[in-house]
Amino acid sequence: MSDIRQQALDYHEFPIPGKTAVCLTKPAQSSHDLALAYSPGVAEPVREIAVDAENAYRYTNKGNTVAVISNGTAILGLGNLGPLASKPVMEGKSLLFKRFANIDSTDIQVKHTTTEAFINTVEAIADTFGGINLEDIKAPECFEIEQELIARCNVPVFHDDQHGTAIVTAAGMLNALEIQGKNIKEAVFVCLGAGAAAIACMTMIVKCGALRENIYMLDRQGVIHTRRENLNQYKALFANNTDKRTLQDVIEGADAFLGLSGANLLTEADIKLMAPNPVIFACSNPDPEIKPELAHQIRDDLIMGTGRSDYPNQVNNVLCFPFIFRGALDVRASVINDEMKLAAVYAIADLAKEPVPDDILAAYPNVTALEFGADYVLPKPMDPRLLVNVAQAVAKAAIDSGVAKINQLPSY
Amino acid sequence: MSDIRQQALDYHEFPIPGKTAVCLTKPAQSSHDLALAYSPGVAEPVREIAVDAENAYRYTNKGNTVAVISNGTAILGLGNLGPLASKPVMEGKSLLFKRFANIDSTDIQVKHTTTEAFINTVEAIADTFGGINLEDIKAPECFEIEQELIARCNVPVFHDDQHGTAIVTAAGMLNALEIQGKNIKEAVFVCLGAGAAAIACMTMIVKCGALRENIYMLDRQGVIHTRRENLNQYKALFANNTDKRTLQDVIEGADAFLGLSGANLLTEADIKLMAPNPVIFACSNPDPEIKPELAHQIRDDLIMGTGRSDYPNQVNNVLCFPFIFRGALDVRASVINDEMKLAAVYAIADLAKEPVPDDILAAYPNVTALEFGADYVLPKPMDPRLLVNVAQAVAKAAIDSGVAKINQLPSY
Repeated sequence: MSDIRQQALDYHEFPIPGKTAVCLTKPAQSSHDLALAYSPGVAEPVREIAVDAENAYRYTNKGNTVAVISNGTAILGLGNLGPLASKPVMEGKSLLFKRFANIDSTDIQVKHTTTEAFINTVEAIADTFGGINLEDIKAPECFEIEQELIARCNVPVFHDDQHGTAIVTAAGMLNALEIQGKNIKEAVFVCLGAGAAAIACMTMIVKCGALRENIYMLDRQGVIHTRRENLNQYKALFANNTDKRTLQDVIEGADAFLGLSGANLLTEADIKLMAPNPVIFACSNPDPEIKPELAHQIRDDLIMGTGRSDYPNQVNNVLCFPFIFRGALDVRASVINDEMKLAAVYAIADLAKEPVPDDILAAYPNVTALEFGADYVLPKPMDPRLLVNVAQAVAKAAIDSGVAKINQLPSY
Repeated sequence: MSDIRQQALDYHEFPIPGKTAVCLTKPAQSSHDLALAYSPGVAEPVREIAVDAENAYRYTNKGNTVAVISNGTAILGLGNLGPLASKPVMEGKSLLFKRFANIDSTDIQVKHTTTEAFINTVEAIADTFGGINLEDIKAPECFEIEQELIARCNVPVFHDDQHGTAIVTAAGMLNALEIQGKNIKEAVFVCLGAGAAAIACMTMIVKCGALRENIYMLDRQGVIHTRRENLNQYKALFANNTDKRTLQDVIEGADAFLGLSGANLLTEADIKLMAPNPVIFACSNPDPEIKPELAHQIRDDLIMGTGRSDYPNQVNNVLCFPFIFRGALDVRASVINDEMKLAAVYAIADLAKEPVPDDILAAYPNVTALEFGADYVLPKPMDPRLLVNVAQAVAKAAIDSGVAKINQLPSY
């Protein structure tokens, strides 16, 4: 572990600090080049944009940029460490945007923790970019921040910790339930954790067909039920009219468990109580709510997913956010709406069912052939088909739902 | 001209919109790479920065980044066309930062035109970057904006339209006066224009030795004198206790003219009135206050500079801003102070006097051998010695004046 620690620090420090840089996409050697790139030539695109703001997409890189913005109040599983400490994560996100979807992403840290000041700051600079990816902002502030920025900004705003997690979780859950022979409309869900990601995941599961009364969400005080007082409006959406109060009460007979809480909070005794053929997504990072090897020892009828790359069925946001933005940018969507999110869910879920073609296996040494099943309910991040399938599905949904400025499907 | 117009538009549009992109400086192909770049490895630099903010310079690209920030209220010579229209210029500036000093620069447009809202926005995101380059913000707001941001930010803040212009103008003026056999302490200056650049230029000329009473600055109402009312505090610094009121009044016997005003505002009759061996920097862009060919027809004893690359003695900010930031970043200067600005003035001026070595001529086809004199008072932008000489002089001045965090001269 200390070896990984040193490797990670060395990776970030050498040979130069950080992970991203700026590069030029146009010639800039001769005086003539510079006369086009800057004075006097640059006056021409300036005038064109002044006449019609749309021309910013024609003459600048706005249309291929996403700002990754955080105030560092909820960094990974580490908590509120401040904006600057979030920088390696935000720069890492930019790296992933580039690596997976060729999106030019800039990380920006905002020093404000109060909702209104944060919103005002982002709103003031939003038009610089083609889209805004919010990141690592604590709940419940993140909900209002995202909603208000969506309302105020002309470009898509997306809080990945909510919706990226929700989309990938829902995709994996749909496939796992199918393999287990369960109907989502009848399945009973337990969600341990009631933060931003948990609420977004359960909202998405409902959009995919689950019934709200079949969902039990738990925070540190136990089951969120209709007689609890002082629930914030987001948790209140999942208040269940039930007498059950503890994890043990609700896990009994449950079909699916989603953990977005903490290490080892799900016990052997707990999972023994679940219905036959259960689904367990234990997504606490780096240590899941229950270790897969332990869970499999106890029951042989379960499907297990985690947040980790060293177990099967990694529930990983990178399956979604590069591609949902790729699709949104390519048709100039004004927002990332529910139709686009659901399109991403189904595109990701469907891809796990399609065998990896031989030509892709030959061309991509990091891609392995896996067969749809209990150990492969989600595609692998390295699968190059994600770009085509997910981005195109998102773009189509944007067009069909009337939020696209360009009504032509991109080809990849 | 329409050909240049189309070339500039095509340059910005094809093959992809804009001029800059993001690229990766670390491997990001394998799962292992991504485990170091993002989860779980990225937690390590996060923790290090949470313990000591200085570590942001070690594990992220903060230390090599400059944000180019504008609200578009004074774009080039085009005026207030709004933030988005300024984007090609800001992206162009990023291109120049990279091309000349390998600085990773992000352009940011702020929608606010009011001083306080603009300042608050920039302050809120400033810590993201290693430095802030303000650009194309109208006077007099730009003065308060810069001063206040310098006071509030932990990183260097520099308004290039003021100080970049001033540094290069002062360097050229020092050399031109020397060639003309004039002592700066006795020279009489006329500055046509009283905007941000003009005030900064004259402030710098004073720091280089000129006497304030020998400077006549003119705005649209004529000479700025001590009996004028309602002068803003910045113009008031150059109110001359004089009875002269017009350009004709003050140009008579003047040793040097600086134009930061408009096309063709200096006439044949005006320049005939100047002292023997005058210096004329007619920097209005794209059309100077007087055309060099016309000026040279009228007098053969003058030295002429313009803002244009197609005449000798181009007064071009690119001689300064990439290198002043390079020097500041490399010794982690907390500000760009007067000592650093003056060091840049003298380094640029001195470089014009040093013959270009043969090895540089051989290696850089865009660099030509020019001899210090009336047609070569400033180095050419393509001269690779600028990076070494200017950045190192700035770094040394930062160390010597006690504002550097790293007290070791960089080598280039």
